[in-house]
Amino acid sequence: MKIESVDFFYLSMPEVLDIGDGSQDALLVRIRAGGYEGWGECEASPLTSIASYVCPMSHSACKPLRYSVEGKPVNEPADIEKISKLVHTNSPDLLQTDHTLSGIDIALWDLLGKYKGEPVFSLLGTSMVYPKLPYASQLFGDTPEQTFAKATHTRLAGFKAVKFGWGPFGKLGLDNDIAHINAAREGMGKDAYLMIDAGTVFVEDWNVAKERLQALKDANVYWFEEPFINGALEPYKKLSEAFPQVPLAGGEGCNNFVQAKAMLDYAGLGFIQIDAGRAGGITIAQRIAEAAAARKITYVNHTFTSHLALSASLQAYAGMEHDVISEYPVELKPLAAEIATEKILPDENGFIHVPNAPGLGITVDTTAIKKYLVDAEIKVNGQVYYQTPEL
Amino acid sequence: MKIESVDFFYLSMPEVLDIGDGSQDALLVRIRAGGYEGWGECEASPLTSIASYVCPMSHSACKPLRYSVEGKPVNEPADIEKISKLVHTNSPDLLQTDHTLSGIDIALWDLLGKYKGEPVFSLLGTSMVYPKLPYASQLFGDTPEQTFAKATHTRLAGFKAVKFGWGPFGKLGLDNDIAHINAAREGMGKDAYLMIDAGTVFVEDWNVAKERLQALKDANVYWFEEPFINGALEPYKKLSEAFPQVPLAGGEGCNNFVQAKAMLDYAGLGFIQIDAGRAGGITIAQRIAEAAAARKITYVNHTFTSHLALSASLQAYAGMEHDVISEYPVELKPLAAEIATEKILPDENGFIHVPNAPGLGITVDTTAIKKYLVDAEIKVNGQVYYQTPEL
Repeated sequence: MKIESVDFFYLSMPEVLDIGDGSQDALLVRIRAGGYEGWGECEASPLTSIASYVCPMSHSACKPLRYSVEGKPVNEPADIEKISKLVHTNSPDLLQTDHTLSGIDIALWDLLGKYKGEPVFSLLGTSMVYPKLPYASQLFGDTPEQTFAKATHTRLAGFKAVKFGWGPFGKLGLDNDIAHINAAREGMGKDAYLMIDAGTVFVEDWNVAKERLQALKDANVYWFEEPFINGALEPYKKLSEAFPQVPLAGGEGCNNFVQAKAMLDYAGLGFIQIDAGRAGGITIAQRIAEAAAARKITYVNHTFTSHLALSASLQAYAGMEHDVISEYPVELKPLAAEIATEKILPDENGFIHVPNAPGLGITVDTTAIKKYLVDAEIKVNGQVYYQTPEL
Repeated sequence: MKIESVDFFYLSMPEVLDIGDGSQDALLVRIRAGGYEGWGECEASPLTSIASYVCPMSHSACKPLRYSVEGKPVNEPADIEKISKLVHTNSPDLLQTDHTLSGIDIALWDLLGKYKGEPVFSLLGTSMVYPKLPYASQLFGDTPEQTFAKATHTRLAGFKAVKFGWGPFGKLGLDNDIAHINAAREGMGKDAYLMIDAGTVFVEDWNVAKERLQALKDANVYWFEEPFINGALEPYKKLSEAFPQVPLAGGEGCNNFVQAKAMLDYAGLGFIQIDAGRAGGITIAQRIAEAAAARKITYVNHTFTSHLALSASLQAYAGMEHDVISEYPVELKPLAAEIATEKILPDENGFIHVPNAPGLGITVDTTAIKKYLVDAEIKVNGQVYYQTPEL
């Protein structure tokens, strides 16, 4: 079958707040071919990604993504890899490319899985899948008291693992950070997995980040995440060597294979966190997962949006028995919560399972999300290049 | 003074060809404050960059660039650095950010230089500037005979240095590549600087790239450029170690400081090539130039567009006496040629000089380029977010 249509849907909450919550808007991709349809989600600025798909060509290495996608055959996994390579050949100088490609690639895997009646992980060559331990991923409270309350609530909800990130961390001084770390540990109890996410707040300053390490060790955190901006190899490496007892996690900002490989090779990471909705889709996520395994660095999905995105991010490492921990969003805005008809819920032992159904195993609830649809239009020299399509 | 307006102008040739010529369209930025105006150029997809400037916020780390720019004070160089940092804090999850920031940052330096009556290099702390040897940067011919003719023409035009790139290189087999390399050397004569640019054609495959090294050495090339995609540290490193007699050049795809630093630290480069129109502007280019100097890696500007962009790219290393070679576009499309009223032309000894005039020392010829102006419009929920402004 050949790709017949590629449609982008920009969804948004009525009000978007200035907080580190990526579930406030969404960009969905629907690809149709041969009577089937696949869905993907870009973890990206919707309007900018749409522009990168439809824009006029600038030169041979700066083509709109549509050039490499529309009309192309999709019958086998190799066809999706071919499209991924073609996009990288045709659009390397268009910076937004990989965020847009991500949703397209995910939708193509979903489409192919439905066409073949197989789950995506099976198309990827995974015969045996393993349960993952979800960690309740959430923002810090504004105060240590609020963080304690959130941690207590998470423990009572049955989660054995939690991550707190962003919010005030790194912005109000060392003592405040330590108070939040300790509040999180006290609320979750001593046996839970506890992860702390600095949300890149220390930029490249490894000396300031280092001041937190003793408190992180005392609180027995499982990892310390994104102290620095993506790709800041030297500060990561220095921090990892200064205090190896606190493993570092990072990588959610990687938007292609070579960036992730640089982090695996030179950042001293214990954990690499990959968002299939940013890194170039499931095709690239799987390549990164294999490179991580070869270096004995634990692969973790990055997901802070819908269960469609969650399913996509689980596929690449569903068969990796020892990479057991998984990011699980627990503070989704209604928009993100309503995208997926089927939910990926913890079982009685607290574990989640990659959907065992064709494609991603998630149906997009087009009726529920209609109310979030943003009407966007892009015109160039009087001609309509994009107009929000029918959902 | 405070930033009063930031306007984007998308220019395009009537027809854009599927060739590696980045001068076929352009995105200019005009910033006004206190009765002055500054101009910059983004080496980027115009429509996508415009969308990244005006799009609605997605979350705290994915804001449109306008959020960090409009109304901000610009009185000192530190104010521009502050805006650059603010953009990186507010928009790290918006992938297009750095390409858009580049033109804004360049326009801010031009504006500040005009306000203070000083060249940009002087604002950057450079007291002594040095001439640069321009290399005639051009595409390979379709055949070795055409490459020979282009090289001969370039020699007769007085250039002592030349670079051929893209076109058929790497696509038609080893023998064809060798024929092009030899044709270039024969046409330029044995004493000229000759550089070969693979245009990332070998992606990550260092074994295939390696097959060209003996011929490159035999032709006494000054560098072998971009055999691989940006950030492919391991293939670069392996190739550099396999045959150190042929120095590698790369970096034009870097779109921030840490990416360039990774290339400086781990790619085995002899030359780092930075486009101020992509890397985040002059602010970031200067930081990269200093990091390169500290590692004794030669800094070279990347410029394949207008003389406005050329001036911007020269500023960061104008004071580096030993980094003497400079990319100089010689195949500009009329659009790119007409942007700058003043041209940066080789002197009687064949050297070029960074303009010694306030700002970038280049006046944008708004009358001449009007005919290339693209009319673009972006609407969200019925509201106009962008409309091509008056030039």
